[in-house]
Amino acid sequence: MAKGSPSNEVKKIGITAKKESDFSEWYTQILINSGFIDYSDVSGAIVFKQDSYFVWEGIQKTVDELFKKTGVQNVYFPIFIPEKLLNKEKEHIEGFSAEVAWVTEAGSSKLDERLAVRPTSETIMYASYSKWIRSWRDLPLRLNQWNNVVRWEFKHPVPFLRTREFLWNEGHTAFATKEEADAERDPILEIYEHVLKDYMALPYVKGKKTPSETFPGALGTYSLEHLLPSGKALQGPDWHSDGQNFSKAFDISFLNKDGNKEYVYQNTFAISTREIGVMVATHSDNKGLVLPPKLARIQVVIIPIYTNENRDQVLEYASKIKWSLQADFRVTMDDDDSNSPGWKFNQYEMKGIPVRIEVGKRDIEAGKAVLARRDDGSKASINVGELNKKIAETLESIQKNLYDKANAFLESNTRVASTYEDMKKYASQGGFIQVAWCGSDSCEAKINEETGLKSTNMPFDAQDKVVGRKCIHCSDIAKHIVNFAKSY
Amino acid sequence: MAKGSPSNEVKKIGITAKKESDFSEWYTQILINSGFIDYSDVSGAIVFKQDSYFVWEGIQKTVDELFKKTGVQNVYFPIFIPEKLLNKEKEHIEGFSAEVAWVTEAGSSKLDERLAVRPTSETIMYASYSKWIRSWRDLPLRLNQWNNVVRWEFKHPVPFLRTREFLWNEGHTAFATKEEADAERDPILEIYEHVLKDYMALPYVKGKKTPSETFPGALGTYSLEHLLPSGKALQGPDWHSDGQNFSKAFDISFLNKDGNKEYVYQNTFAISTREIGVMVATHSDNKGLVLPPKLARIQVVIIPIYTNENRDQVLEYASKIKWSLQADFRVTMDDDDSNSPGWKFNQYEMKGIPVRIEVGKRDIEAGKAVLARRDDGSKASINVGELNKKIAETLESIQKNLYDKANAFLESNTRVASTYEDMKKYASQGGFIQVAWCGSDSCEAKINEETGLKSTNMPFDAQDKVVGRKCIHCSDIAKHIVNFAKSY
Repeated sequence: MAKGSPSNEVKKIGITAKKESDFSEWYTQILINSGFIDYSDVSGAIVFKQDSYFVWEGIQKTVDELFKKTGVQNVYFPIFIPEKLLNKEKEHIEGFSAEVAWVTEAGSSKLDERLAVRPTSETIMYASYSKWIRSWRDLPLRLNQWNNVVRWEFKHPVPFLRTREFLWNEGHTAFATKEEADAERDPILEIYEHVLKDYMALPYVKGKKTPSETFPGALGTYSLEHLLPSGKALQGPDWHSDGQNFSKAFDISFLNKDGNKEYVYQNTFAISTREIGVMVATHSDNKGLVLPPKLARIQVVIIPIYTNENRDQVLEYASKIKWSLQADFRVTMDDDDSNSPGWKFNQYEMKGIPVRIEVGKRDIEAGKAVLARRDDGSKASINVGELNKKIAETLESIQKNLYDKANAFLESNTRVASTYEDMKKYASQGGFIQVAWCGSDSCEAKINEETGLKSTNMPFDAQDKVVGRKCIHCSDIAKHIVNFAKSY
Repeated sequence: MAKGSPSNEVKKIGITAKKESDFSEWYTQILINSGFIDYSDVSGAIVFKQDSYFVWEGIQKTVDELFKKTGVQNVYFPIFIPEKLLNKEKEHIEGFSAEVAWVTEAGSSKLDERLAVRPTSETIMYASYSKWIRSWRDLPLRLNQWNNVVRWEFKHPVPFLRTREFLWNEGHTAFATKEEADAERDPILEIYEHVLKDYMALPYVKGKKTPSETFPGALGTYSLEHLLPSGKALQGPDWHSDGQNFSKAFDISFLNKDGNKEYVYQNTFAISTREIGVMVATHSDNKGLVLPPKLARIQVVIIPIYTNENRDQVLEYASKIKWSLQADFRVTMDDDDSNSPGWKFNQYEMKGIPVRIEVGKRDIEAGKAVLARRDDGSKASINVGELNKKIAETLESIQKNLYDKANAFLESNTRVASTYEDMKKYASQGGFIQVAWCGSDSCEAKINEETGLKSTNMPFDAQDKVVGRKCIHCSDIAKHIVNFAKSY
């Protein structure tokens, strides 16, 4: 695992904005001042520095291994898509055309045809699928790419959450029957749930999107929805049932066992670096970043506390501790004489390192060390012989605590509205508002118009409550329970 | 590990070109007809299908783990570089300007400034390094990216070897002193050597480039050079000592322990998907691909041989074998009734699967299976109880055999020329021609002019032979032993 001492560059820059009162400014400060990311000379694109790219590597590795166990295979397609090809499926391109970056020149030549920098790869991949799939024996074809995509946001860019280039997985699968295609949904969503819950310590609401919020051309979109600390909702990983929409547009057909031509059924699914933004926004506080231990590049920082007289003695003791911790954790030690311990405490709190170990003269005599937790700030004096065990327990406890806190926030900010008046009242408080709905696009559109709320999804675990309920807007018989929220 | 049965799509297309007589056509046929890669709708860019992307994942994982052990940390920088920034270092941009793809439009807007799709990331990374590095405590900074880069080749594109988009690592490191910077060279080159030799089964010549072949602005370029079966040389992974060239252009400076400003010393290093082309060209034959077992997505294919009468019995036996092999190897079984065993043999030979297991009625009775090697075509009848052990030995033996064969080819095609006449004579035979050289650019340029040969590098292991030798061109005292070759 990568280890290293943090850079001095962030010296003297603290977090001045408050999470509660100025979320946007706070969010930017914690990301930049902690050295987690940096801006670049390209507007709207960020630099993933060591700590943030480490998070993405952890997500990628976890998801990729599980994808492969379910039979997904990785491939790589070109980043450029010829304009003609991108325009082949109308509904699809309409969703992206305003955001496409175009290559028009190479060297000193003008290109004959513009090339899109991929906003997503359906069109170029399915042109190949059409050639590759001939017989039922070629199915299922379950391919995935880990790559970079570009969507030229013209709105105010926000690190991770709204960037012009981001990293993601794009899974594109093809099956002989609708049943087989549908059977892929749960295993894939469960992989995403695992990485969100057990690695990023993030809760989510799992459900199906309403038809008007479904991916253009798809039969159904299933999503994991987040609630930001600001009370706004943000969509997380998703899985789309595309049916035969693309297979008919791109002629992806096969001869079935009886020798008859059929079109394949397709799905797509993705998780992106946007999740990293949700993760840091959710857990961090007014002192800076708070990182879940499983995805923290440095899990433990050792701060020796010494005077000129006992410097060597303390450093020797601290080094011994470092050596013994290194086998179990990702550890660094900061023995920079030019900064005070107090300054260092602030610094590593800002960087979100989960555990700090302090050792001074008195600890040597007692054979102890002080263990401080980043999440709740608590401190305990630990016998050195028990340090590895205690740190392991503490990291586990922090990981759990972050999830529990985030989940409590999500739960306490999910309000069930029984009347349209309540719904409007709750709208100003932020969070999810759970209502019964008749299923009509027009009711959904009117709710949006009148309240500014948008539907996020129809939570799986709430659908049993629809029995006997009426639509919150038109009072017809309700068919679904839907979450509404202000969207990010 | 990913497992799966190959697609039917390549049915009935064989390899018609010969490696010896029509290398270029043969090379394309083995890549396309085996389903290893495919062309796309973007000229000059290829689709990495499952088997080829698996090779890249293997290279990446091996190199990345070792990089991290030496302290290299991964980051991710934007793919776009503003034109002004790209032009900041003159010598550098001159090397790439003819090959840059430019984004000029986004959505329906024209951009104010053209954005280069990164041909390499020095300029955008070093603009950040200039901000990040302040003190000697920030050094060394050893960052790496795994990403995609675009270089718009206008010559005839060739899969892997000359493509408009390729994947690579780009390491960019900064140190306080030249000595520390130089100490990075051997560990990095050894990582590349390990993956070439032990995974890709590729030999190479390790050495320093001559000044005229050194990366623009660099103090020294060190390379691992390959010899293609066509007798032409191709540069593999490299490591550049950039000195203070970039740090002065981008003002990457730090305060040393005495509080004085100094410029950092920098290195860069890379391995790219080009290596995959060298690997398949080197090992493959007129039947198709030959893949080194360590990087073969499927290592073993089981072909059951049956009639209508004994079909169930044979398939049951073959399935049992498959189950027992799966724990140790990446295995597939082809029980497609519509193709004959003979057709399947050809098919999987074309795909380069290292080991084929054949089982028929007679094998069941004897408790045996036939093991066939892809590299030399030999077959042996093996007791089923010994199959896992024998396959493990065979895969190891194939891995070694491929390297030994390639190395023998490289050695027998390296000719030492003592006179300029010999050098010219050898030039027509292809391969490396090793000569003594005075070190002057003009001798090197004239050799190139008069023979069409280019210097590849000055092999480390040949430098002891320079003592007492004279330059092959001017007869002055020789300072170096240099390899020359026709370059790809």
